[in-house]
Parts: sequence; C-alpha cells; structure tokens
Amino acid sequence: MKVYRSEGAGFCFGVRRAIDLAFKVAGKYKGGVYTLGPLIHNPQVIEKLVETGVKPVDDLRGLAGKDVKAVIVRTHGITQQTMRKLIERQYEIIDATCPYVKKAQHYAKLLKEKGYQVLILGDSEHPEVKGLLSYAGRGAVCVKGSDDLPALKGKVGIVVQTTMTIGALKELVATTIENTKELDVYNTICSSTVVRLKETGDLAGKVDVMVIVGGRNSANTSQLAAHCRSLGVPTHHIETATELKQSWFSDATKAGISAGASTPDWLIDDVEKSIKALRRTRA
Amino acid sequence: MKVYRSEGAGFCFGVRRAIDLAFKVAGKYKGGVYTLGPLIHNPQVIEKLVETGVKPVDDLRGLAGKDVKAVIVRTHGITQQTMRKLIERQYEIIDATCPYVKKAQHYAKLLKEKGYQVLILGDSEHPEVKGLLSYAGRGAVCVKGSDDLPALKGKVGIVVQTTMTIGALKELVATTIENTKELDVYNTICSSTVVRLKETGDLAGKVDVMVIVGGRNSANTSQLAAHCRSLGVPTHHIETATELKQSWFSDATKAGISAGASTPDWLIDDVEKSIKALRRTRA
Repeated sequence: MKVYRSEGAGFCFGVRRAIDLAFKVAGKYKGGVYTLGPLIHNPQVIEKLVETGVKPVDDLRGLAGKDVKAVIVRTHGITQQTMRKLIERQYEIIDATCPYVKKAQHYAKLLKEKGYQVLILGDSEHPEVKGLLSYAGRGAVCVKGSDDLPALKGKVGIVVQTTMTIGALKELVATTIENTKELDVYNTICSSTVVRLKETGDLAGKVDVMVIVGGRNSANTSQLAAHCRSLGVPTHHIETATELKQSWFSDATKAGISAGASTPDWLIDDVEKSIKALRRTRA
Repeated sequence: MKVYRSEGAGFCFGVRRAIDLAFKVAGKYKGGVYTLGPLIHNPQVIEKLVETGVKPVDDLRGLAGKDVKAVIVRTHGITQQTMRKLIERQYEIIDATCPYVKKAQHYAKLLKEKGYQVLILGDSEHPEVKGLLSYAGRGAVCVKGSDDLPALKGKVGIVVQTTMTIGALKELVATTIENTKELDVYNTICSSTVVRLKETGDLAGKVDVMVIVGGRNSANTSQLAAHCRSLGVPTHHIETATELKQSWFSDATKAGISAGASTPDWLIDDVEKSIKALRRTRA
C-alpha cells in the first residue's frame, strides 16, 4: 500500500503566526498567560501550550483572581465587547486573531456603518462567527446556507466565516440577489481553505481510503472529512495516530492523508508513520 | 376554445410615460420632433408616432440639416457621450429614458467612480446596454451570462439590463463570487419584467398554445416567447393579428395571450378578437 500526503496539509499562516506569538509570550512570562477559549482548534497543541504556561479560560470570568501577565486573543477572534473589556481592564493583549478573520471583522463593521442588513454565512456556534456578528451590529444574522435566509429589507451585505465552502457562498448569493435590489458581498473565505479543500479532494479521488488528521472541534478539518465522504471515498477523521485501525486499510492499495489548518506537522508525521507501520505488520 | 389574457400584458410604467411625453411634445410642435432610434421597440406604435410628427433618426447625424424643435431620448436611454452632445448642441431634450434604466445608469456610474470593474449583464447590441456601458466607463464589459465572464481583477460591480431574467443574474453572481473577493451587485431587473415573466409562465402552464404579441426587436417580448417555449408550450411571437394562423389552434381547447412591455393594448385587443373570430369561423 502506498501512502500519499496532501501537499498543503497542516498549519495555515494564521495558525502558525498565533502559535509563534503564544510560545514567544510564554517564554517571556513563564506562566500567567491566558487565552480566552482555545487558541486554535487542536487539543494536542493546546496541551503543549498549557505545558509552557499558556492556559485557556472559557471567558473573562475565568481571569478573575488570577495573576494575569498577558491575554492572548485566539485565532478565531473575539467579540467587540470582549475586546473592549480586555482593554478597559488594562490587560496586556496579544492579538493572535488570524489577519484574515480580522479583515472579515472589518468588513462586517463597514457594512453595518454603511447601513446594510448584514448576513454572516457560517456556523452560529463557531467563535469566529460570534465575533463577526458583534462587529456586524444589531440586526445582523448568521445564516447556515441559502435555505436559511431571513426576511430581507433594503440593501444586504454578506461576510463569510473564513473556513466556509465556496459552494455554500455561491448558493447564498444567488438566493439573496433574487430577494434584494442591492447586494454587497465580501468573499472572506481564506484562500488556504479553498486550496486545502481542493487538494484534499483531488487526493481523495486517487486513493482507496482517506485519513483526515485534526481537532474534532475544528470546522475546517471536519469540512475536509465531509468533502471526501461526499466524493464517495471511505474517510476517517482522527486527532492522533492512536485512533488508527488496521481494518480501515484491509482492502486499500492507496491511502491518502490530509489535515486541517490547525493540525501540527508532528501529528501528521505520526499518522503517516503509523499507517506505514500497520501495513508492514500486515505484510 | 377559451382565450385567456395574461394580467399584466402590455405597456409598463416606463413605456406609458415615454409615449405620453412623446404625444404631448408632438401636440406642442406639430412636427420637427425626433427620437434617436425608436422610442420603444414596437414598430406599430412608432408608425403612429410618425403620423403625429415624431420621427426616429438613427443617430445624431440624422438630425443634421433638419429643423429640430425637440429631441426625445428613447426609453432605453442613450450613451453619456450622446447626451453630452445633445446638450452642447442646445437641442430641447425630452428625456423619456425609463426611470428604472436611469437608475441602472446611475449605479453603473457610481460603481465606476468607486473603482469597481463593472460588468453589465445583458445583450451588448441592445441600446440600453450601450448606454449603461458608457456610464460604467472604460474597462466595463457586457456579459451575456455566467459562461461569458472576463478575467477579474480587484473588486467587481454588476449592473443588469432591466429586462434580463433573474435566473441569468443568479448564475452570474454565483460564478463571479467564486472569482473575486468583493462583489457589489445592483439587481436592476425591473419588477414589471419579473412579474410579467412569471404571470406569462403561469398562464402558459394552463393552456395548449401561447401567442405573444409585441415587437420582434423587443428584448422583453422575445424573452416571454422563449420562456413559454422552454416550458414546452407551443408558442407564436407575432407583432399584429394579421400574422395569426388558424392551424396554430387546431388542437387547442385553451389559448393564452401575453405581450411585452412595449405592446399597446389595441394590438393585444386585436389579437384577442381575431383568435376568437378564427374559432367561430372554424366552428
């Protein structure tokens, strides 16, 4: 069995930047560094960060009574209100919001200021979307897809969770333009998401089984798995090599590996080695 | 055989307004009144206008050496350059541009001024589109549909010929958003076009044969006929009752009539009466 790895698997620019920032500030303070929610959606990386003294707390209340040296803002960003409170409380803020998410926040605010009814295409439970909604102001709505369109009045603006699929955006703009006279769309899907999805899909088309490595809480990783499944390829989404099962590969001559934007290389390397080892055990 | 007439068949607001203006100015000057191109796309109405002293000329050169009392701008509008020349030459200008086309021209200009690459969705040979392109400035492109998308650079703005179908616009915005980061769309399809197409389609679904009345050079009339044909209903596009053929109705128990935005009631009445008469002849 041959094992292929998708070219762009693993850390994107925004995640790499956030982790570099986190390790730097961890080295500076040796403890007392906190993130509001996990810095990225990968439990194994978060564990390593905790070991170096960077701890996630659920929200601002989690900082109460602690000797806080610095607060790191997660890659997905936070709400405008939370950012204001961090500033008011004079914490040292390390803003590790992905620059592409920052851009989306800017556009959400801009559309609000220009009087648009703002739609955020994404998952309303995702922290990035919660942040975007706060910038888009009152009246802004999160929509999951084109079936989810609210009543539209006046001009409509759309901003997109950076990890959404282009297909969902295409459907949404088509449905929206039928129901409004003026539509301003910011396609804030990050190009890394688009390329990763394409490369992963291309690889899936050439193998018998796909293994997607990354946090189960990672939107873009889950999306890679869903995409491969939609192509009819047996697909397994795992966080670490320990979850691999020999049986997944019993009929396979070619296996493919891809990974989300928040998956570190060492986890992907582990999975690749382990699949190759399984094969040897069997042979 | 029963004969049904589509509810909104005939003159739209913009055409009615233009014709009222034309007859008014004709009554004032008794001759010497010209339009640049036909006022509307209906040869029979144009004939009547000529009888009252309102004559179409192809372009500005057609006005040379004539005793021009007033120039009427057609419902479809003219280019910005031609409008400037009319003003420079100090003609009395009666602007019968449809207010909805005027709005589309305004948006095309606005997008150009804001630095957008402007796409005009429409038929490049149609006078309305020629006008819109002139307002959208250098670099603006007319696209027939989503297959026709040029190379996109930077932010893209879309304005639509007022008589286009919403389906074509939906496809275009979906294709465009895949290829750009920022898209501003003005859905300038006039609601009369949308309603007329829907009502005509609904009627077509209930009858055995459709007759569409209106100028062969009329975009919206031709579109009604194409739409009925796409629904699998035998459809005949005629300008006047004289073109009707008994054979079209030989197998029909129900016939439907619709008409474009530039078709006068008297032409539709004629067709309705003639179809009923054909039937009596046969019975």
